[in-house]
Order: sequence, then structure tokens, then C-alpha cells
Amino acid sequence: MSAAADLVTIPARRGKAARVRKGQHVRVVNTHGTQVVDTWAVCATDPAEWMSMEASRAWFLKLRAAVGDTFLTNQRRPILTLVEDTSGICHDTLMAACDLPRYRLLGVEGHHDNCRDNLHAALRELGLTIAATPSPLNLFMNIPWTPEGALSWGEPVSTPGSHARFRAEMDLVIAFSACPQDILPINGRAGVIRDAHFAVE
Amino acid sequence: MSAAADLVTIPARRGKAARVRKGQHVRVVNTHGTQVVDTWAVCATDPAEWMSMEASRAWFLKLRAAVGDTFLTNQRRPILTLVEDTSGICHDTLMAACDLPRYRLLGVEGHHDNCRDNLHAALRELGLTIAATPSPLNLFMNIPWTPEGALSWGEPVSTPGSHARFRAEMDLVIAFSACPQDILPINGRAGVIRDAHFAVE
Repeated sequence: MSAAADLVTIPARRGKAARVRKGQHVRVVNTHGTQVVDTWAVCATDPAEWMSMEASRAWFLKLRAAVGDTFLTNQRRPILTLVEDTSGICHDTLMAACDLPRYRLLGVEGHHDNCRDNLHAALRELGLTIAATPSPLNLFMNIPWTPEGALSWGEPVSTPGSHARFRAEMDLVIAFSACPQDILPINGRAGVIRDAHFAVE
Repeated sequence: MSAAADLVTIPARRGKAARVRKGQHVRVVNTHGTQVVDTWAVCATDPAEWMSMEASRAWFLKLRAAVGDTFLTNQRRPILTLVEDTSGICHDTLMAACDLPRYRLLGVEGHHDNCRDNLHAALRELGLTIAATPSPLNLFMNIPWTPEGALSWGEPVSTPGSHARFRAEMDLVIAFSACPQDILPINGRAGVIRDAHFAVE
């Protein structure tokens, strides 16, 4: 069976979740090279235990993970390890998932797809609800910092078909959102939102 | 009435919370100069709306707030503005509050005071419970970064009696913990945990 046959689509502007067993790998493919994928992981046996960017930074002591680094839950347990990356390893840990109030601040009236709603909808499809919106791991999202600590919304550095691969360190539910941010340049200056793909291997 | 008469103690290794009205100021005093104070703010009318470091960074676009910067809630509403600072303005937004599993990873067996428990205990004293532990604003905590994004546990740069002053942008509950971290050097190399003080003005 080809690897491509196992690829699951994360539809443009939408979310998708899947169950993953400890030891399995999750490969996230930036199919078109410019698409940010907000990513969360929740413990399969406790919906109050989830991957925590603030606990992870305190563990690997970096603003961005490198290959070999392990993300921790809010109970400080290993949940995902970045084991391979062909995308430039430019994954943001600093920024909240976009949400409707965020688009209001950006001048949007009426509905706008957003990663927060996508997360909770994707989890609901698996019968799961969580009590808050954890800070996401923003795959392929380029948020540069200056020595003085200024942040900015960069354009992607990843290339079409590049990927990040994670090892699951516990049984978990992984959730993705193909970020619908079409106002800031994080999904490329053209603001075109594309699908992405993943495989559980 | 002197300002000192209004000071409330945040006991060493413990938490303390207080109600604050929109427009009031909260002055947090680093009485001994070396004490990190983990700080949270929760909307007075909705215990699911709280100050969010990830939403705040996305708003003021800095790793650390400067004077004049406003922190946002997880609903992207202004909650606290840093209006004055005599402490060196070195307040971390990146690191999780310490918790018992964190002390396990640092080799502690048995009980250790921790900021997560202090937060929830302080809120309980006001009859409030929240569904998760938000990433805190770590006042007076020095977490330097390198151009490559490496983080480290720095020693405080603040001086005895220095303070940070915030304006409340909504009715809120503020909660503090005089961080009991006595293993890492964030409260000074001696690892002595001290009290701190605050005033609602």
C-alpha cells in the first residue's frame, strides 16, 4: 500500500481529528507549501490533559521545537515528539488559534471560519469535548522574533509536499485546522487557503 | 491614608486573589526584589474568560509587554494594561505555572508548593472556579531568549520595592502566586522564596 493511499485531507478552512496510538507516527504534509496547520493533541483517556505550549517551552527551552524535541501535556507528560522535518522546522508555539473575536478585531463582520471552531468541531466528530481552547502548535507558521522580542506575521518558508513527522508518546487524539487566516500573510501573501494532509503510520 | 496601608500580602509560596473594578489600578510590589509573582486575571462575569498570553502576544506582537501594552482575554477583549513599571519590565509570558508534576520532573518527591494549586486555592477563597490553568503572566521573571530562540532560567533583574502597575480594562478577579520555585534560579540563586505585595487603587 502506498503512503499516499493513507493520506487524510484536512480541508481548506476546516478541521479534522483522528485517534492515534502510542508509538504510531503522524506525518503532516504541507501539500501546497503555504498552508498553516494549527495542531492540538489531547490525551485519549483524559480530555482535561492536552498538549501545552507553555509546558513544552519550559521543557525543551526553545521558542520553537527542533527535531528530537518532545512536547508535554499540561500534566508535564510526553505527548508528541518531532522526529523528522523537511519543511524548514518553522512551527510557531506563541500565537493563539484564530477565533471569531480575532476576525472582529481585523475588521471582519459576519461569519469567518476560524481555527478555534474547527478544533472543537473536529473533536466533536470523535465524540470528544474539551473545556478550553489550548494554545496550538502552529505547524508551518513563520513568526520571527527580533533580539528585542518584537514578533511579526511572516510568510511560510515551507515548500509544497514538505512534512513534519511526530511520534505519539501516549494514546491521543490529534486535531488539525487548515487555518483560514486570509487577512494576515501567514498563509502566503496571496491569502489563498489550501488543504493539507496527514497520515497516521 | 498612605499607600502602604493598602498593601495586601501575597505570602511566600502562597496565592492571593482580589476583585478589581474596571478603571482601578493594581500595583504589584516586588518587596524583596527577587520574587517572581505568577499573575492571572479572570473576567468577573464569566469564569471561562481569562487573560490569555497567546492572545496577548498576538495583539501587542512582543515576547514581553512594554508600558502601554494591553493584555487580552481568550475572547480578545482588553483586560489589563501595563501603565507603569519601575522593575525593569522583565515579565515572562512564555512559561507555564509550576505544578506538582513539574517538581516531579525536577526530582522532588512528596509535596511541593506550586503556583497552579495556589491559583485555584486563591480563586476558591473568592468562590470562583475555572476549568483550566491559563498560562500565567510571570511578573519579575527573567526568561532571556537568544537570536536562535533558546530560552533559559534567568535571575531577577528587579530591585527591592520596585513595582508594576496595571489598569483594569473590565471588572475582573486578579490572582497572584508568590512562586515557590526554589530549585531553578528564577527567584534568585539563593532559592529563598519571599512574600510580595499588591494594592488595588
